[in-house]
Amino acid sequence: MRPRITVYEVGPRDGLQNEARHVPSGDKLHLIQLLADAGLSRIEAASFVSPSWVPAMGDAEEVVARLPRRAGLTYVALVPNARGLERMLRALASAGLEAARVDAAVFLSASDSHNRRNLSRSVEESLSELEALVPAALARGLQVRAYLSTAWACPYEGAIAPDRVRAITERLLALGCYQVSLGDTIGVGTPGQTRCLVELLLSRVDPERIALHMHDTYGTALANVLVGLQAGLTTFDSSIGGMGGCPYAPGASGNLATEDLVYLLHGMGYETGIDWPLLVAAGEQAQRLAGHRLPGKALQAEIGKRVAQAGAGKDPSG
Amino acid sequence: MRPRITVYEVGPRDGLQNEARHVPSGDKLHLIQLLADAGLSRIEAASFVSPSWVPAMGDAEEVVARLPRRAGLTYVALVPNARGLERMLRALASAGLEAARVDAAVFLSASDSHNRRNLSRSVEESLSELEALVPAALARGLQVRAYLSTAWACPYEGAIAPDRVRAITERLLALGCYQVSLGDTIGVGTPGQTRCLVELLLSRVDPERIALHMHDTYGTALANVLVGLQAGLTTFDSSIGGMGGCPYAPGASGNLATEDLVYLLHGMGYETGIDWPLLVAAGEQAQRLAGHRLPGKALQAEIGKRVAQAGAGKDPSG
Repeated sequence: MRPRITVYEVGPRDGLQNEARHVPSGDKLHLIQLLADAGLSRIEAASFVSPSWVPAMGDAEEVVARLPRRAGLTYVALVPNARGLERMLRALASAGLEAARVDAAVFLSASDSHNRRNLSRSVEESLSELEALVPAALARGLQVRAYLSTAWACPYEGAIAPDRVRAITERLLALGCYQVSLGDTIGVGTPGQTRCLVELLLSRVDPERIALHMHDTYGTALANVLVGLQAGLTTFDSSIGGMGGCPYAPGASGNLATEDLVYLLHGMGYETGIDWPLLVAAGEQAQRLAGHRLPGKALQAEIGKRVAQAGAGKDPSG
Repeated sequence: MRPRITVYEVGPRDGLQNEARHVPSGDKLHLIQLLADAGLSRIEAASFVSPSWVPAMGDAEEVVARLPRRAGLTYVALVPNARGLERMLRALASAGLEAARVDAAVFLSASDSHNRRNLSRSVEESLSELEALVPAALARGLQVRAYLSTAWACPYEGAIAPDRVRAITERLLALGCYQVSLGDTIGVGTPGQTRCLVELLLSRVDPERIALHMHDTYGTALANVLVGLQAGLTTFDSSIGGMGGCPYAPGASGNLATEDLVYLLHGMGYETGIDWPLLVAAGEQAQRLAGHRLPGKALQAEIGKRVAQAGAGKDPSG
């Protein structure tokens, strides 16, 4: 029996935040609805980072207030610090949402240079803050997930030693994070490195406590996922349609597309709880919101197939 | 020690033939030159299919006459039948090219429906013709490679039984083909199927006699390549920039991009003999010839990186 795989959908936050076009809250919520309808059980929906840093996510309160609620569906919201945590807790309270429905996601990088550019402090300083923030979130009934960026390589420092990633991951788990999602932020990872990193981690922690957040910048995301599956991981992050470009290379791919991931998983016989036609419909809507062709290959194949079938369907009548 | 991997470049034939824009012979030869400069040792360069079927390849004689010649570089030309073989031999003779420099590639499908659409005969009829054609080519000093399409699935018949692919492959090898390249023509293969198919074949034939020709329609090409590498295969087909769309889904991806393949191989420590910056330069030229953004992710990442660096370089002065 293959294990059930959890697909962690990051499109409505990570995806839309990195798209050029502003998406109104109503459209964001409609996309979240379509993703929930398609059977995604984990959806990153909002960010409580200061709106002055990330204006695109300034509607976090409104989004949280209007999140569709259903059995088995958990959302995630980014929480950068104590102030963000208080904002999130107020938003949940005024929406009447139990803490169990929205996890808090904390984030940092494995490399100092990237962490300083993103968070204006060293990795060690970030970890010190998390030593207060994570227990505070847990005390308020939230579950906490951690995103660890640049876990393969840093755009400023190059390759990151797997043992450094292991050490940070173990500290995050020890703080009480239920899972650490390892990000290949610039999408340069290849399967050999991924196997080394994952095997090192799994020599120390259980597989359900590690997720892979692969970027498809060089087209290797699914090959890395395959290595993760072979090693026993069961959670993978992805973004509908591949929304959210690579910030270091305009026009290049960033997030792994959810449709590509789910196509691979279903083709290999893994259960995901996701309905394929409804997922493709969500991808088409994401493409409308982004206002440009999204990089996900399976999405484009399905759209192309429909165009071809519609053309073929016209032949007999025409 | 990892084995050396052979990348079989199909862009100048398979790629360009499936692009909408006509590419003059001189531009085709320039692309071939760039690919040879980048270190590709196998380049599919021409087709001796009747020009009335495939006008884009009607310049086969001119291309063969002007092929760059260098040590260790072998070309491939498609040969559909005895007439195509005679045309190829005449072209080689008038160009003064030894038979050892250009292999003949024969082709058929694993499924009857696809073979009938493509070649107007059953698979069994194609195999009967090849029983005469392959020995005739061998007798004239050519080496013969075989392309077996729809080896995972047929657009008309659905999934193809691996044992059928095995049986046809063994017949082709018994005829004297040095290698059979298995094509996932509609790009639907996933790693579980690929492992079954490859392991079945490798229980009967040596790894160097099997190549994988993956399409990236659903983004799974490199994950399938990884399975092939894990099983011990050493030859993979790809097209520069991912040229050559999926004929069944307009706008969708077809051939695996050479840059994506080589990025994966180099990242895993495999030797290919290929120079990365020169390969990217060839990809950029292929994109100019195609006249549209090619789907290869690594190519777009490298182009994007350069754009970003050029932009960053302007900052201090601006």
